[in-house]
Amino acid sequence: MAKGRSTIADIAREVGVSVPTVSKVLNGRLDVAEATRARVEAALARHDYRKPVSTRSPSSPRLLDLVFHEAENLWAQEIIKGVERVCGPARVGVVLSELGGSHRPPQQWIDDVMARRPLGVLLVLSELDDTQRHQLESRSIPYAVVDTQGEPTPGVPAVGSNNWNGGLVATRHLIGLGHRRIAVITGPGDVLCSRARVDGYRSAHDGVGLLRDPQLVRWGSFDAESGYVHARALLELPERPTAIFAGSDYQALGVMRAARELGLRIPEDLSVVGYDNLPITEWLNPPITTVNQPLREMAALATEMLLTLASGGRPASTQIELLTELVPRASTAPPPPG
Amino acid sequence: MAKGRSTIADIAREVGVSVPTVSKVLNGRLDVAEATRARVEAALARHDYRKPVSTRSPSSPRLLDLVFHEAENLWAQEIIKGVERVCGPARVGVVLSELGGSHRPPQQWIDDVMARRPLGVLLVLSELDDTQRHQLESRSIPYAVVDTQGEPTPGVPAVGSNNWNGGLVATRHLIGLGHRRIAVITGPGDVLCSRARVDGYRSAHDGVGLLRDPQLVRWGSFDAESGYVHARALLELPERPTAIFAGSDYQALGVMRAARELGLRIPEDLSVVGYDNLPITEWLNPPITTVNQPLREMAALATEMLLTLASGGRPASTQIELLTELVPRASTAPPPPG
Repeated sequence: MAKGRSTIADIAREVGVSVPTVSKVLNGRLDVAEATRARVEAALARHDYRKPVSTRSPSSPRLLDLVFHEAENLWAQEIIKGVERVCGPARVGVVLSELGGSHRPPQQWIDDVMARRPLGVLLVLSELDDTQRHQLESRSIPYAVVDTQGEPTPGVPAVGSNNWNGGLVATRHLIGLGHRRIAVITGPGDVLCSRARVDGYRSAHDGVGLLRDPQLVRWGSFDAESGYVHARALLELPERPTAIFAGSDYQALGVMRAARELGLRIPEDLSVVGYDNLPITEWLNPPITTVNQPLREMAALATEMLLTLASGGRPASTQIELLTELVPRASTAPPPPG
Repeated sequence: MAKGRSTIADIAREVGVSVPTVSKVLNGRLDVAEATRARVEAALARHDYRKPVSTRSPSSPRLLDLVFHEAENLWAQEIIKGVERVCGPARVGVVLSELGGSHRPPQQWIDDVMARRPLGVLLVLSELDDTQRHQLESRSIPYAVVDTQGEPTPGVPAVGSNNWNGGLVATRHLIGLGHRRIAVITGPGDVLCSRARVDGYRSAHDGVGLLRDPQLVRWGSFDAESGYVHARALLELPERPTAIFAGSDYQALGVMRAARELGLRIPEDLSVVGYDNLPITEWLNPPITTVNQPLREMAALATEMLLTLASGGRPASTQIELLTELVPRASTAPPPPG
């Protein structure tokens, strides 16, 4: 049988249940025995069943599921604003949820999504396993990713930003100010965006023939605490860096605390560059030079993609990367003399 | 006819439509002619109709509407976390929306809510008009308020916090450090929480017989810009204050910028107290002494109330105020000598 061409009747016949039962399972109804549900799900997966898009009732509430790995996500508010910017005028309700957070096991989450029958699912720092992906596909619920990690999955619609370029422009800015000992604190080594930014940092050095000191490259996590810990270590090196390029604005806050504790002034003694350009950064002391990661635009574009897919359309492109750019403010200056 | 005792059949007979038509209107279905809908709505309001709670289908998706006046709300992320803390384990999807924001006219919003049929509606800095309230009541959709304004509507379930006490403890802290010229920047004069905090500030003065200077009380808005503008004016007074109690952590950021521009060090030359205790405040330069407004707990409690009401239960109390408390950090110290 051709992939994706099975009907509900085929599935019902094979499993030995009625057509309405298969339909209930597809619609996320909970009034079907667990064992029966499991057998129907297995048959749907075997047949690679795809529910026709047109069967959606026009009177169902129009929802979009926005899924964070956990609610503590630093960028959550920016991403929510981007999604709301598109869903508001389209009269689509945005349902927030957590996948893999401490609150809810993944299987419950996908059951709840299927019961809600959203127009689409937008994932932030969350990954679906094969079963979950197939469950959404069989219901013709499209999904897309706001890709802050820089690691798009082949075939999955995603909007990211150019992390390599972010590392390049931040480092070039510091080199242009005259810095020669520039440290970088980035995210975990197994997250691709961390590596891309460090590669941009290296390219900026290599482009002007500036030697790089491997001990000035630090792999951390994206929170303020990590910025603090690594900055303390960097600033206590015998030959300390005159500039630190942090992996997030929160990390930059940690770097600034470390500098303060050591009596170093920013930017006179130490230049600091952040990453993300969260709205609060322009009000910090001093306002932080940072790399703009266009989170709102990324989220808005991914949402538009999803709504296009949900209405049976084809987005012009489904894997997009937006450009990052430097936002110079008061936390960077030429290095101290000597 | 007794209030609230009419049946759908009564409504249908009076309007001259079928029972299923009334039912469709109640369920937010859009396949009813606009004029008919309007007549049914009017009859529902006349009869003060209340849909029995028990008619909710157990297989409907379980949703809760969380409504902000606009998405730029400074506290949004804290409130979302509080709601999610309760809705996550209860397997209730949280639908975010804006009321009166630029995106969506209020009538569309209420139509969409009725089509979603949420378990309840949680309002933040948003007010429903009488028609909207009645539309929710006739569907037996309970609503509650996370009351950051300190102005509960009689009869509407709400969780707020003690703003007067917030003003009191912040000012007592500064007086205890030895300050005698203490300024307060608060929110708009027509928002009750602004007035309550100023009254707490006054009581702290009066309690120790300290004279108050009326020109040190400033009414603004809760953003950083407002803190900046008022602090510039205060710090350029002939006899400037040695401490400023701000109406929000964002306002405090503005105060700190004004101080920096005038070459005043914090806390050596000027003490600053914020309000809200947003998580980022502990990482600022310096970390801000602030009043904890327990936004997560307020949101979590209001959500629990709503879920209790939605299941036909009666919360132990429906108008609650949580206590505010001072969180001392590095932005406050004794005033400079002289």
